Amino acid sequence: MDHAIPDIVIGRLPVYLRELERMVRDAGKTTTSSHELAERLGMSSAQIRKDFSHFGEFGKQGTGYHIHYLIDRLTEILNLTHEWPVALVGAGFLGHALASYRGFQRRGFVITCVFDNDPTKIGKTIGDLVVQDAATLETTLPARGIAVAILAVPADAAQETVDRLVAAGVRAILSYAPVSLTVPPGVHVSYSDPVVQLQQMAYYLSPTIP
Amino acid sequence: MDHAIPDIVIGRLPVYLRELERMVRDAGKTTTSSHELAERLGMSSAQIRKDFSHFGEFGKQGTGYHIHYLIDRLTEILNLTHEWPVALVGAGFLGHALASYRGFQRRGFVITCVFDNDPTKIGKTIGDLVVQDAATLETTLPARGIAVAILAVPADAAQETVDRLVAAGVRAILSYAPVSLTVPPGVHVSYSDPVVQLQQMAYYLSPTIP
Repeated sequence: MDHAIPDIVIGRLPVYLRELERMVRDAGKTTTSSHELAERLGMSSAQIRKDFSHFGEFGKQGTGYHIHYLIDRLTEILNLTHEWPVALVGAGFLGHALASYRGFQRRGFVITCVFDNDPTKIGKTIGDLVVQDAATLETTLPARGIAVAILAVPADAAQETVDRLVAAGVRAILSYAPVSLTVPPGVHVSYSDPVVQLQQMAYYLSPTIP
Repeated sequence: MDHAIPDIVIGRLPVYLRELERMVRDAGKTTTSSHELAERLGMSSAQIRKDFSHFGEFGKQGTGYHIHYLIDRLTEILNLTHEWPVALVGAGFLGHALASYRGFQRRGFVITCVFDNDPTKIGKTIGDLVVQDAATLETTLPARGIAVAILAVPADAAQETVDRLVAAGVRAILSYAPVSLTVPPGVHVSYSDPVVQLQQMAYYLSPTIP
């Protein structure tokens, strides 16, 4: 695995994978081209060919790409050949939405435990899982070999929770808390904040209300 | 407004704005430096100074930045001097989480209407809003001058819903549907897919379960 591949290329691979899986599922397709993929994704075919070139030869000139081969290679490159067990921290509205989300299935991740520190939530069921006391994070996570967590706690509790997750062996955190987090080297954080995304787009809108 | 500013710089401005507002709210701070901001955000101070340089002089050498001035300028640059009314489409678990999310307040956006096409959901209340029949999108959105929408519908319904939103005058869409969408020039889409974000991080993890 060559870690010199630019982060921005790695960032696009899951989008390629998602679209390829959709082409198989919805249309039963077995081959595609960089042009077809580009049109479906709203990007340039040259960009796709350049991204794929980082990983050697994915297809032959003229005959296009074999979709199943591409899916297998991308799955391997992204370390998705096994399912990663995921801890969800926070059993509020968002935690419920995430625990109920069926989109994790067959895409490499499965939420295997849910934590909260609210006594009225601990012991309740969300999806198929019983909400555990967040005080048990430090024992449960290492015992279950969990390296991936989703953070759905309020901003004020986020950094402290992240520190505890990292101490418990977590190496990748998807955070929905609207705050920047500090983690040691080797730990990865990805942020999801709807307001940040809306603000980014607002820049490009006409400044007046229509 | 200079639209030649790189998208990647625009993408970081909401994160600066969020952190500056937090410094005022939590610590009552009135001045800061690129070094302090960099440390809080886990990035380099040179990057911050370079980003700010696109917008003229935000601070004076040696005396740092006045936080309130920075906040006002970023708010203006990002077109957030008024609140944008937002339509939420999809009243499932995720729609509920978004409608209940208090993080939109005072950050430029307010969800003013919620739509679904499920007869068992139409007429029900989520947060302070009554779920409207999605069949009324085309009349309600223009009447309310809505240019921004959040899409929380299943993948299969996403493109058709986007086409209708665009026809109704929407120019910025935050999509939670796990699918790439096609929009005409001048319409902006931002995606939020937890699996894509988790897969991006999985690349950097050791390929074996710990």
